[in-house]
Amino acid sequence: MDRLRADTPGCARVAHLNNAGSALPPAVVTDTVVAHLRREEEIGGYEAQTEAGERIEAVRASAAALLGARPDQIALVESATSAWTRALLAIAHTRSIKAANRMLVSSAEYASNVLPLLQIALRTGAHVEFIPDDASGCVDVEAFRSMLDDDVAIVAITHCPSQNGLVNDVNGIGAILDGTDAWYLVDACQSVGQLPLDAVATGADFISATGRKYLRGPRGTGFLWASDTALDELEPFPLDLHSATWTAEGYEVHETARRFEYWEKSYATLLGMGAAIDYALDCGVESLAGRIGELAQYARDELTRIPGVQVHDRGAQRSGIVTLTREGVPAASLAAQIKAAGVNVSLSTPDYARHDFDAHGLDGLVRVSPHAYNTSDEVDRMLAAVAAAG
Amino acid sequence: MDRLRADTPGCARVAHLNNAGSALPPAVVTDTVVAHLRREEEIGGYEAQTEAGERIEAVRASAAALLGARPDQIALVESATSAWTRALLAIAHTRSIKAANRMLVSSAEYASNVLPLLQIALRTGAHVEFIPDDASGCVDVEAFRSMLDDDVAIVAITHCPSQNGLVNDVNGIGAILDGTDAWYLVDACQSVGQLPLDAVATGADFISATGRKYLRGPRGTGFLWASDTALDELEPFPLDLHSATWTAEGYEVHETARRFEYWEKSYATLLGMGAAIDYALDCGVESLAGRIGELAQYARDELTRIPGVQVHDRGAQRSGIVTLTREGVPAASLAAQIKAAGVNVSLSTPDYARHDFDAHGLDGLVRVSPHAYNTSDEVDRMLAAVAAAG
Repeated sequence: MDRLRADTPGCARVAHLNNAGSALPPAVVTDTVVAHLRREEEIGGYEAQTEAGERIEAVRASAAALLGARPDQIALVESATSAWTRALLAIAHTRSIKAANRMLVSSAEYASNVLPLLQIALRTGAHVEFIPDDASGCVDVEAFRSMLDDDVAIVAITHCPSQNGLVNDVNGIGAILDGTDAWYLVDACQSVGQLPLDAVATGADFISATGRKYLRGPRGTGFLWASDTALDELEPFPLDLHSATWTAEGYEVHETARRFEYWEKSYATLLGMGAAIDYALDCGVESLAGRIGELAQYARDELTRIPGVQVHDRGAQRSGIVTLTREGVPAASLAAQIKAAGVNVSLSTPDYARHDFDAHGLDGLVRVSPHAYNTSDEVDRMLAAVAAAG
Repeated sequence: MDRLRADTPGCARVAHLNNAGSALPPAVVTDTVVAHLRREEEIGGYEAQTEAGERIEAVRASAAALLGARPDQIALVESATSAWTRALLAIAHTRSIKAANRMLVSSAEYASNVLPLLQIALRTGAHVEFIPDDASGCVDVEAFRSMLDDDVAIVAITHCPSQNGLVNDVNGIGAILDGTDAWYLVDACQSVGQLPLDAVATGADFISATGRKYLRGPRGTGFLWASDTALDELEPFPLDLHSATWTAEGYEVHETARRFEYWEKSYATLLGMGAAIDYALDCGVESLAGRIGELAQYARDELTRIPGVQVHDRGAQRSGIVTLTREGVPAASLAAQIKAAGVNVSLSTPDYARHDFDAHGLDGLVRVSPHAYNTSDEVDRMLAAVAAAG
């Protein structure tokens, strides 16, 4: 814990409870990015890439280790959105979605996962359907089972939604999907680096992840895990000269998950993501999860003691994300007042997850997301700011 | 000229004639990226983005100024490939390509522009056709005119191809397309920062550009210019919560070219691209073009004096890219020998531009691409290495 704070330059400057937004990186992350940028400056961008070739490939192995997977199943991309949409584009290109098809998503699904499905629905006549919540507020696995039929083409579930504290049972959903033709996309944007996640155990075809949140990597980084079935059966679209080779006869798609990458990327930030994953693995994700869970639960427990404060987290298992409103104080104003007290938190608005907000009659939430490097003192500063808000 | 070199830390280390690959940045570029990374480290990634909000928007204005365009026509993305493919995806989503459709591309078109069209052709039955070259070796504008009919859905032309020294008449092609329904994509990857380019004068619907080449920006940066017609008529796919808003009724697409962006990106490298564009504008692209053209022509003239060397550049107008082979020395070996002499150049292989290489019976080329900060002494070092190669 002392080491975590000593490794994190930002801890001296701010109480950062916005780790589900973009975490404070450990020094090794920024230093790794800067070192590669300086090398590019000195010898040229392509030349620095060639020199760092093995370290770049090692990022794939680090991401694989985080998910208990193989490096050839990992694509290194610019964001979780890039990861998720490249999976979707491969599905849509290889197996065209038809009017009869159904696309099932969790009620709390993130806007950037739902919007592309709404676009497909508008063009093809297919339907987007929201899976009901169970009594605890997470995806109702039994209701999901009863919704399944041969027309279901896509199932998209966010493991830990961005705007509430629940953890969906992605493994339970995957078990039900076993043997069906539906493509199963798990958005692990808020879970990688926060909770242990075993890719194969999810039964997913794809898992999308970002570098900047609980992994504490640089902005503009992410990765995609693709199952062997996805690699066997799907052709990414659009391909480039890194994901495929233009041959005299047509083209050959790269056999590994590199097929989901583009050639051009920031190798500096990618190396920074690798450093972040290695740092998380070194800390131990189980141990990070324990500490994050404790701080989040402490925040929840104390917030509920403040008059007028409502905590909106739900689900049988809770993530490190704590969401709240305070009666009589608009969420945007509450967030601003907490920030003015030197505590970074974020504001979630209905356009982030329209179905979830509308279903619960919410027009805004303050999100508090501690990491293992935070202290209970920092949580207390947040609590004091919430209590003082008016 | 002295200022250009003084501003470029890498000049002290290497003779960098690989500017069509990834140029040595001026110090202000890397310093800008590093400063933002350090700010993210200190106060958090979202918080640093908010703080830099006006400077981030100013990058759009800088890119617009470079093309004589409006900021609302500029999307800031991760690479020229991202830019080009988002344009293509919008076309394919909004106007589905049918079996009768034709997609016309230049003979020297880059693999990453052709591969997606080959994929569409395979799925739909539509055809990819290469436009013949004229006697000078660039796109034959009159032949192009005779190929046009109502079935042509897409025309894709690289302004300055990556693997030879020609400059295609993108304005002439655009003039012929005026009033047709074909979507016209201009790849300006090797031309922005090298040659003056007026977006509207091209008649293009889209212009894609990268930061890392002649603009001397960071890797993993690029931008897309979208015409007003493209903005009026096309819906990007897939949308995210930055390019569109999820509403109670469905979604609303952002009215500016932001509709082609994703929310998550590296704001550090994006600001670096802005610094690079501002630096180029400050130097004056006309003046950079003059200097680059002189050095490239000097290299060509001298290379042709070396026994056994063949220069493969063609076209009535030449770009800053010089391509060569030497009899009896495989291109990969020639490139390696030049690099061993402390001169950065690159190797182009047939998979970069299959149609072009096959048409000219080439299996590899060495590419030499000076920038305005290079000296004739550096070109001489390259010439000496070529002369000594065996």
